[in-house]
Amino acid sequence: MLDPLITLTTDFGEASPYVAAMKGVILSINPRARLLDLSHQIPPQDVGYTAFFLAAAIPTFPPGVIHVIVVDPGVGTERALLHVEIQGQRLLVPDNGCWTELIRNAPTPPRVLRLSQPRYWRQPVSATFHGRDILAPVAGYLSLGVAPSEIGIPATDWVRWQAPCPRENAQGLAGEVLFVDTFGNLITNLPGTAFSGGAISLHIGTQEINRRVNSYAEAEPGTLVALVSSQGMVEIAVNHGNAARRLNAGVGTPVALRYQAPSAPHLDPGRAQV
Amino acid sequence: MLDPLITLTTDFGEASPYVAAMKGVILSINPRARLLDLSHQIPPQDVGYTAFFLAAAIPTFPPGVIHVIVVDPGVGTERALLHVEIQGQRLLVPDNGCWTELIRNAPTPPRVLRLSQPRYWRQPVSATFHGRDILAPVAGYLSLGVAPSEIGIPATDWVRWQAPCPRENAQGLAGEVLFVDTFGNLITNLPGTAFSGGAISLHIGTQEINRRVNSYAEAEPGTLVALVSSQGMVEIAVNHGNAARRLNAGVGTPVALRYQAPSAPHLDPGRAQV
Amino acid sequence: MLDPLITLTTDFGEASPYVAAMKGVILSINPRARLLDLSHQIPPQDVGYTAFFLAAAIPTFPPGVIHVIVVDPGVGTERALLHVEIQGQRLLVPDNGCWTELIRNAPTPPRVLRLSQPRYWRQPVSATFHGRDILAPVAGYLSLGVAPSEIGIPATDWVRWQAPCPRENAQGLAGEVLFVDTFGNLITNLPGTAFSGGAISLHIGTQEINRRVNSYAEAEPGTLVALVSSQGMVEIAVNHGNAARRLNAGVGTPVALRYQAPSAPHLDPGRAQV
Repeated sequence: MLDPLITLTTDFGEASPYVAAMKGVILSINPRARLLDLSHQIPPQDVGYTAFFLAAAIPTFPPGVIHVIVVDPGVGTERALLHVEIQGQRLLVPDNGCWTELIRNAPTPPRVLRLSQPRYWRQPVSATFHGRDILAPVAGYLSLGVAPSEIGIPATDWVRWQAPCPRENAQGLAGEVLFVDTFGNLITNLPGTAFSGGAISLHIGTQEINRRVNSYAEAEPGTLVALVSSQGMVEIAVNHGNAARRLNAGVGTPVALRYQAPSAPHLDPGRAQV
Repeated sequence: MLDPLITLTTDFGEASPYVAAMKGVILSINPRARLLDLSHQIPPQDVGYTAFFLAAAIPTFPPGVIHVIVVDPGVGTERALLHVEIQGQRLLVPDNGCWTELIRNAPTPPRVLRLSQPRYWRQPVSATFHGRDILAPVAGYLSLGVAPSEIGIPATDWVRWQAPCPRENAQGLAGEVLFVDTFGNLITNLPGTAFSGGAISLHIGTQEINRRVNSYAEAEPGTLVALVSSQGMVEIAVNHGNAARRLNAGVGTPVALRYQAPSAPHLDPGRAQV
Repeated sequence: MLDPLITLTTDFGEASPYVAAMKGVILSINPRARLLDLSHQIPPQDVGYTAFFLAAAIPTFPPGVIHVIVVDPGVGTERALLHVEIQGQRLLVPDNGCWTELIRNAPTPPRVLRLSQPRYWRQPVSATFHGRDILAPVAGYLSLGVAPSEIGIPATDWVRWQAPCPRENAQGLAGEVLFVDTFGNLITNLPGTAFSGGAISLHIGTQEINRRVNSYAEAEPGTLVALVSSQGMVEIAVNHGNAARRLNAGVGTPVALRYQAPSAPHLDPGRAQV
């Protein structure tokens, strides 16, 4: 019999006692729970960043894992807290859209509940820390085998967040930087498949990226390169360097793929796999 | 049979190999130990910060957990290393007071031992890393079932650290910032219950906080607000912002609650629950 | 029966989804794997730093643990990925030398395989994330009991990385800073045993360190001191302070031990234990 696995993703940072308090609450309810940190370094209250993070991380997990996500700018308001079943995963998450990118590649629609049963919450519930007082204890009880139907009521509507879509125009495809990783690599919303559309130039701000590679180390150290990211998107990087600093670029910086006239291929950006 | 749980709280940071070495030492003694990180981002040698952290985190855990705490400015001196039993928790901790805030809400006094049995230590014991050479191996042996009486001798005296208490004065209550969290929220030593004492104004430095809310998102983004923190204290925050940066405030910044004349209520700051 | 233990050491940082994706991949193959973070804060692509980290951390672990190390500036090139058995430990690691400092104190030579069996890899293998697509799944299968001989072919050559050795000269011993820890302590490549070689002065840059102590707290706060580090090396520190900032020193800063004329002892730097 396998002890249940509960992952934690928050924007709490690791210096604050908030993550530790959530761990204690879960273990007080189910001492057998295996806890796994995904990240506590999500930028504060950044729902879009969380969406990218979860889309890259959650689908790698085996079915049955419970994922607790606390990036919650609306804590204490009427925003709901949700239990989501999608692709065999179970998420406990504020209703702010940070999980809805997962719907895109799921074979079946999500099953969503709105948490509604205070008997599974820690009392008194503070107005500012629902991670500790609602999500953590509910995760603990779910891991003990409490049925989802016990903890909430079906929801048919929820907040959707969507990554900005690339737009086709006369020159090609206009997009933007979606994510900057620890190395300063810039991951865009342009699908990597767009690279195969004939002769191409890639631009970020006023800079043209002239070098297309398959991996960072193909180019000499310090070279600005474009490649397909490990998530399948167009990525801009500097071998042994930091493209974000070099280009002074960040989330939202415009990027553009230009095709050779006259025949721009018709891409389906909806198929892009983040 | 549940594998024993050992938590780790240090000021080592995560780039240094010190935490990893402690994990290896514990697992070499008890390969069944379940290790759980609470934080390795305690500011270097900051006993007061650790006291706040432990007071918020430790009471959420179930009984029987072993907590190893290594914030140890006195390493290599004659300061003792302690085994503390309090509220069903077990702590291995340097004798610098970082744990003594836990006494305040405990129903019974702590049972304290001074570690004294080098046969449970890693040899040779370095002069600068008692976390690896004493606390980690002792935690490993305790998790195997070694009795506390085997590892140390009863102590009746220990270093006490106390959070600065708020002071009553003619205008109201004078306190200070105790803790700044990852979001820049300022948690003070003024008890949240003080908010209920009649008409009130709250001041930090020369700034008056005019807006009292129950949760961050009640106010418009960017508003400076006061609320009761998830630890039950008066907290100063900026919705979607960073109060510490906005006010240039930090641990120790004075705060004051002013009551309407003439009848200041008599608060018992000793009851404040950190 | 003990669930297998897999540790993770990367330079991915904790804000990126890369570590979480590796955890998901491992658990999808072996849901019983116990995952343990050693560090994800290795400075990007810093092989020398990793070598120091692993030499301090890995030997503390019990036999049979699988250590996955992803500090991989050569990802996507022809550099090999290795399975190394050394001192009872098992490492999965890029062939960049970051592990070879472990050979120095091992009683027997390492057994090294080059990973060669794509049937144990995640398909398709991206060109930029072999941690997720090769090392993580191979770790998962090894933890299920797949024999090393199934996953790779014996290798007799590999990249070696060696910490810079101290050099003897007419005045004494010239070395450099190897590592700067979270506290700003400077750990050098001079063996701590060199301290016992008669009257000595220690120099870093133009500064002479006059105070030799056994532990930080022996000196008054703010004092610049030299001591033997917990790894057995000469270390320069400031009690309650940060020596790296105080001296504006970092990895590679020259240090020198001077002996009293005329008889400089003949040290064997090869015996230095990092």
